Parts: sequence; C-alpha cells; structure tokens
Amino acid sequence: MFELTMAKGSILQGVLEAILDLVNVANVDCSSKGFSLQALDTEHVVFLSLFFPSEVFRSYRCDEDCSMGIAIADMVDLLRASNDGDIITIKVTDQNFEDITITFESPDKTKTTDMDLQLVDARSHRLKISEWHDMESEYQAIFCMPSAQFMLNCKSLSVIDDDVVIRVNEEVISFSTKGKSGCVNISHVPNKTDNPEKASVTLTHMRGPVSLTLNLRYMKSCAKVSTLFDQVKIGLSTKLPLMVECKIAEKGYIRYFVAPKITEEEEGKTETEEAKEESKKK
Amino acid sequence: MFELTMAKGSILQGVLEAILDLVNVANVDCSSKGFSLQALDTEHVVFLSLFFPSEVFRSYRCDEDCSMGIAIADMVDLLRASNDGDIITIKVTDQNFEDITITFESPDKTKTTDMDLQLVDARSHRLKISEWHDMESEYQAIFCMPSAQFMLNCKSLSVIDDDVVIRVNEEVISFSTKGKSGCVNISHVPNKTDNPEKASVTLTHMRGPVSLTLNLRYMKSCAKVSTLFDQVKIGLSTKLPLMVECKIAEKGYIRYFVAPKITEEEEGKTETEEAKEESKKK
Amino acid sequence: MFELTMAKGSILQGVLEAILDLVNVANVDCSSKGFSLQALDTEHVVFLSLFFPSEVFRSYRCDEDCSMGIAIADMVDLLRASNDGDIITIKVTDQNFEDITITFESPDKTKTTDMDLQLVDARSHRLKISEWHDMESEYQAIFCMPSAQFMLNCKSLSVIDDDVVIRVNEEVISFSTKGKSGCVNISHVPNKTDNPEKASVTLTHMRGPVSLTLNLRYMKSCAKVSTLFDQVKIGLSTKLPLMVECKIAEKGYIRYFVAPKITEEEEGKTETEEAKEESKKK
Repeated sequence: MFELTMAKGSILQGVLEAILDLVNVANVDCSSKGFSLQALDTEHVVFLSLFFPSEVFRSYRCDEDCSMGIAIADMVDLLRASNDGDIITIKVTDQNFEDITITFESPDKTKTTDMDLQLVDARSHRLKISEWHDMESEYQAIFCMPSAQFMLNCKSLSVIDDDVVIRVNEEVISFSTKGKSGCVNISHVPNKTDNPEKASVTLTHMRGPVSLTLNLRYMKSCAKVSTLFDQVKIGLSTKLPLMVECKIAEKGYIRYFVAPKITEEEEGKTETEEAKEESKKK
Repeated sequence: MFELTMAKGSILQGVLEAILDLVNVANVDCSSKGFSLQALDTEHVVFLSLFFPSEVFRSYRCDEDCSMGIAIADMVDLLRASNDGDIITIKVTDQNFEDITITFESPDKTKTTDMDLQLVDARSHRLKISEWHDMESEYQAIFCMPSAQFMLNCKSLSVIDDDVVIRVNEEVISFSTKGKSGCVNISHVPNKTDNPEKASVTLTHMRGPVSLTLNLRYMKSCAKVSTLFDQVKIGLSTKLPLMVECKIAEKGYIRYFVAPKITEEEEGKTETEEAKEESKKK
Repeated sequence: MFELTMAKGSILQGVLEAILDLVNVANVDCSSKGFSLQALDTEHVVFLSLFFPSEVFRSYRCDEDCSMGIAIADMVDLLRASNDGDIITIKVTDQNFEDITITFESPDKTKTTDMDLQLVDARSHRLKISEWHDMESEYQAIFCMPSAQFMLNCKSLSVIDDDVVIRVNEEVISFSTKGKSGCVNISHVPNKTDNPEKASVTLTHMRGPVSLTLNLRYMKSCAKVSTLFDQVKIGLSTKLPLMVECKIAEKGYIRYFVAPKITEEEEGKTETEEAKEESKKK
C-alpha cells in the first residue's frame, strides 16, 4: 500500500508540469522515507533525478518498497482537473501495481473526483547512476544564483541562438551566445562566501576556471523547473555533465545532469591547458 | 418599429458570444413582451431556445410582432466594436426588414458609431418545438448546481475523452468519462430541498434513477453559456434530450436540449429496467 | 563616438517595437541635438520619419555627425533581453561603423550584459524628403484626438473590412468602412479650440472639408505607435499623404505619411469640387 495526500498546486504538481517537456515516462521508487524519480530525456542529453522526502506531503505512507512506471503527461493532465482547495490523494492499493488512483476531495467534502491511471512498464527507464555525493571533489566550480536570475539569463540568451557557453573563474561567471545578427554576453561578478542564501550570484567552490558549451533549449528546461524554488546550484567540470540542482525541503532535491556540446575549440583541450590559461590571466 | 437599448457588456452580448460556437444563423421572434430566439446547431445535436424579456433591457419597444433572421457571428463582431461605457441601441425601422441598425453612443455623447447589419432569411431555422412547460412531469430527475461548478466538471472531464455519462440517483449525482489512459468520475452528494438558490448541488425532483451519455463538446458549450448566470438547472429523462436551463431575470430563460448518445449498454434498456436497478440498490 | 543611455522600457524601445511591423531596416542620422530615423515600408505606402531629441535620454553624446543603418528587428530582439531596472547603453566606438554595442547594467551593478549588433548598409533607405514645416498651409484640415480613441476607432472598424474613409468638415469628423455583412460609421463632434491638450477630439485647423480613403492595416500601425503617447495629430489634404503625428517631448516627433487609396469616386474630383460640396451643405 502506497498513499500520499497533498494540496492542489503543491510542489509535486509543479515539478511534474515542469519536467514534461523533457520526459514522457519515468520510473518511481518508493520507500518509507519518500520517493525518487529518474528519467532520461528522449534525446539522451539530460538525466533527471529527483527525491521527494515524505515530509513535503500532508500525509505519506509506504508499507514496503515498491517501484512503478508513470506516464508523466497523463498524470499531469489528471492533476490539472483538480480545483482550488481540493485535497489530492495518490494511492496504489492494487497488489499487481496496474493502476494508480488519484482522488480530489472538495473542501466541503460534497464533491469527490476519482481517477484511475494505468501504470506503465518503465523498468528500462530505471537508471542506476551513482549520484556524486561529494560534489565539491567532483566539480571544478560550483555557484549558486537566484533561480529567477537563471531564468532571465536564459531568456536574454534566447534572442540570439541555441548554444550557450557558461564560463566560471574567480572574477566572473558569464553566460554567452553568438549568432548571425550579433552576440550576447552576460557577466556576473560573484560573491565568494559559504552562505549563498541571498539574492546574489555566489561562487561556493572553485578549483580552477572552467567553461562548458550547452544547448540553450536544455538550459531553459532546467531554468523552468528551477523557478519553482528560490535558488539554483550549478556545478561545472570538464569531465562531467553540467549539474543543475534545486533543493526540495531539507533532504530532497531535483537534479538535472546535462551533457555538454563538444566544440572544436574544446575538443583538444585538457584540464592542464585550462589551468595555464588561468595562470596567464593572473 | 423594433428598438432596444442596453449597456455594453450586457447579458445579451454575453449570450450571443457564448452560443457562437454552436449556432451560425438564428431566427428571432419579437413581441411587446420580449424576444425569443431558436436555433439548431449545424450537427443537429443541440436545440437552443431562449427568451429575453423586455425588462432586462434599458429600454425596449416592439410595435408589432415581427420575425427576423440574424447572422450571429456578424452581430457579435459588430457588438465587439463597442467601447466601455457605450450605450448600445439595436433598431429595425425598415418596413422590409432588410437591415438592422446598431448604434453605440459614448458616455459624453461626442462620439456615435452607426452600423448596419443585413438581415438574413432564417425561416428554415424557425422551429416550432413545444417547450415542456410542466418539466417535473416530463423529466425523471432535475438538479441544480452552481454554473461555475458545472464548468469545472466539464474541464475536469475534458482531460480524458469526449463522452460524459451523467448519472443521478437519490444518493449521488455523478459525471464520468473513460479513456485509454484512465478514467475520471466526479461525484456530488446532493442536497434535497426545494430551495436550490445556494452554492451547492441540489436534487429538486426525482422520480427514479437515470443516466445519459453525452458528447462532452456540447456539455462544454452549455457550461460556457451557463457561467453568465449563477445557477444551472439540468433535467434528465431516458425519453428526452438532456435539458440545461439558466434563468434570465424573472421570466426569461436560455435552454439547451442536447440529444444523448445511444450507447450499446443503454440501447436495449427500458425505463422498467432502470426502475429494477433502483429497487436493487435500496 | 556615439553613446546614449536610457532606462529599460523607455520610449525609444517602445517606438522601435511599434514600427517593427512596417519597417525592417532604417537609416539613422545622429547629431549633437539628437537623432533622426527615416524609413519606407516594404510596400512603399508609409513613409516614417522620427526625431528623438537628446533630452529624452538619460545621457546623450555625439562627437560628430554620423549615419548608420540598423536592422530594427534584431535591435528590438536584443533590447527585449534587458531586465526590469536595467540601464541600457547604446554605443558606437568603431571608426568604421561596423558594430553597435548595447550594454545592460543591473541596478546593483553585479550583472552586465554586452551585445554586439552588426550595422547594415541602409543608404538606399535614406530619403531626403522635405518635411512640411508649415503644416497649416499644407493641409486642408488638422485635428487632434486622444491616441487611445484613435486606437479604439481602428479596432471598431476592423470588424468589417480593410478600407477606411476619414471625412472631416466643420460639424463632424468621421471614420467609416463598408463590407459584405454591413457597414460601420464612427462620428465625432469636434471641439474647435487652439488648446487641444484634452481628452477630446479637436479640430485645430480647417480650410475646407476633405476626405481620404486609407488601408486600415496602415491606420492600425499608426494607432499602435500613437498609444505610446497621449495625443495624436492627424492632417488631411487631397494633395498629400495623410499625416499622423505624435510629439516626443518638446522638440521631437514621430510622423507617419500614409499614401491614400485612389477610389473611383475620388479619382476625377478636384479640390474645387470638394469646395462646391461644402457650399452645398451650408
């Protein structure tokens, strides 16, 4: 038996709507502590991993660990049918895990909406990717920024082209793009503090300058999700996909891992060369 | 001579805009008491009948009974050209009933907009359908609900499919639909009182349980019109089209009669069988 | 060296967005007093001439007179990338006038966005049209109206067709159009005063009745720009294009000159005949 209740418009609903443009089907693993969802976009550029801890729901119960495949678009459609003030219950009672039942109850309890959604087989979408618990040792640079700022940057860049270069060094964090009609370069002077919970761009970790080229379309998908949260944390390494992370309550998170584009310029470059560049600048 | 005046954004304008998706041309019969309009949608599923009593207008004058055909879309387009605060006059002076004149006068009277709209021949759209004056003897069940609620139900159901089943019995009034990805069932626990003027679903008349299958598209058209009013009254009978009614002031009304879909299940069923089902439940 | 700074959302940005549907490329002539822009729409119906005096900008500097060609759509796209509160700088430092640099600086100065836009060759768009400085001697009738009213008229007329007739005489200023389904005629009773700075239609100059037939599409473009300003001034003559003018601060202006349609009725008519018509009416 799996059952959770939440208010209409809660964070789960927002996240599902926001990941919809990348993900069709996702595998969900439930335990007594919460549930995790992993999915790969259809073009295999973005790996999405999220963990919703039980505390973010009005009530949460999971008697034994279980796994189910969910058609995200259908789930989102059904959740959209809820009305303001409704209490939403998501439940699986079926032993065979064939159906998930979604119930909306109106505040005055005179109206109940029951929906059945067929579960799908999503075992092929279940990826066992180790999740970089020690981020600081894995990434060359990590910075935090208000997610509204991240979204604005993506919007500004999208007036030009679909490739964005993110560059980080001690002095500046920049987002830039280049097209036929011109070019755009956005530069942030970062704070350097361990307390990034502010309305500013903060460099929280730095082992050397780094730059990655990414498809703007995927950056915009990340930015869209991030606006459900105050802050976004971005990790860069020349050896790993870009990581974009938002925290869900204390222990939860949503993480996007975005494969960079390999540009000609970067192809032959090693981390040593990057380090040389850094020393030249100094 | 026919002439009425009204304020911009009045109920007539709202109703004409709302019926536009079903009706192209309508026949209007005018008398000194008000005017009635009857129309059949192009697919002959919905019959629409409305009566606007003279009291709902700022002024109303009809010297002798007359009949005219109106191209609803053109009329709506012209009315849209009015500005906030305008007083709208609709007038026919022409003996041959070839033109209708619409005039907008700005509040300060320095601006006048005159429009001529050609009348059309809509005699074929003039239907003389008797209008069930004794509803309670004709329908098996009649219930009232806030029209906003009716609209929300249609929206919730539309996440799935285009068929809706409305079921009424003493305990529950339900709207349900079923599709490939799942199913939705909305249940209301009805009040039972003769005073339905409340923000709740009220069963005002009940001679036995009844269910009808309808095309959701037409339900949505009815719901759209209904939101111009507070309450909607819905009558069901296995022998008649579904009736959806809203009251316009004391004596006026707008009524939709929607032909149900004949489903396999219901095809062989008689009212007696329905009655048996009811007695089983008790 | 050319450099100006302005706040996001300033009048220049609004004007560029509003002229976009008519003009692709424009020639800009800069001097120490401000800059002027001239452009012809692709169908050669509208000639647009505007002068932005240096006073409307936060800062303005032009060391020597210069001329540059700007791709308006690209410029507008880049300006759209600015965020609320940004200070926008537009600068040309390049001796060869190949690039224009646009910079946005965030209010807290921690974020800078730099953009380069290639200048284009727009010498062919540079028109040396004398600009009717003595309007009252050139036009038969000149009237002012609130630009919101002008916009509303264009919207009302657009429910019917794409030709609009503007008629001006001492008693009435009318905008009318005629289509298959009917006709619309908007009449204003004008004030007659030399102080048109009011929320009313004012006839400021009149040498005789005049009417012009224009394509509604171009009228709507003029109306769109005009809503950035309070008042619009419209000049009519049977011998000149219609003039639509809005003032930018004390010395600046934006002027549209719209070629009228030659209708059969008007083709053989001379100013004398118009004068005769006028005397008949009296």
